[in-house]
Amino acid sequence: MKALGRHVLGEFYHCNPEVLNDLAKIENIMKEAALESGATILGSFFHPFQPHGVSGVVVIAESHLSIHTWPEYGYAAVDVFTCGKVVDPWKALRYLKESLQAENFSAMEVRRGNLEEVAAVSESGTLSQADKACYGF
Amino acid sequence: MKALGRHVLGEFYHCNPEVLNDLAKIENIMKEAALESGATILGSFFHPFQPHGVSGVVVIAESHLSIHTWPEYGYAAVDVFTCGKVVDPWKALRYLKESLQAENFSAMEVRRGNLEEVAAVSESGTLSQADKACYGF
Repeated sequence: MKALGRHVLGEFYHCNPEVLNDLAKIENIMKEAALESGATILGSFFHPFQPHGVSGVVVIAESHLSIHTWPEYGYAAVDVFTCGKVVDPWKALRYLKESLQAENFSAMEVRRGNLEEVAAVSESGTLSQADKACYGF
Repeated sequence: MKALGRHVLGEFYHCNPEVLNDLAKIENIMKEAALESGATILGSFFHPFQPHGVSGVVVIAESHLSIHTWPEYGYAAVDVFTCGKVVDPWKALRYLKESLQAENFSAMEVRRGNLEEVAAVSESGTLSQADKACYGF
């Protein structure tokens, strides 16, 4: 299926719990992951939880990255959604695996926005136009 | 599989393009969707694109909601990630389908954070403890 975007859901197990509980480190790691993938950062929001854990999102010109951490279980749920052909979500995933010091890791990629479906509703779109469409990228 | 979170990826086709291109409306719809699901909003970030489209994220105490719209194709990609047993991501999805006026809709739910895996790395966690763990919810 040809698609507008790629959405990678990453499961990071057996991470370093101190890193997972450090808001500043997690925010920095997520922004670096975005840049590593070739993305342009537009904004972000991060929140620390009591007694532990961090949630945060980085909105990029090519969609977003998010993270939710459970330091008490050494676990982080990450998703990286990108559109366009320049940005590579898997580069962000690899950077995150290393930075979170995850011993176990799994991920799945979901194609988002079926181009045959969106072409059917576009007045002027063709598959090749849609394939390139990603707000300037 | 028992899991820490539920992550629903929604594909909304044949939506109202005017709604998809209206930053204020999209932000309001996403926040209402979060409340509809029973979530507590912590923060948000929304961004308008030129010539069209909106990206935005609402961070909730139970994880997040995100949206990326392609008004030119009548398409929006949404994801709703929730943890805990109180919040129902599908209530947000149903609200969004109605508000975006989507004629076609599909969604998949991915369980995040395998409890058997996280229990194995927790010093004191048990499956039932982990199952309830969601930062106060």
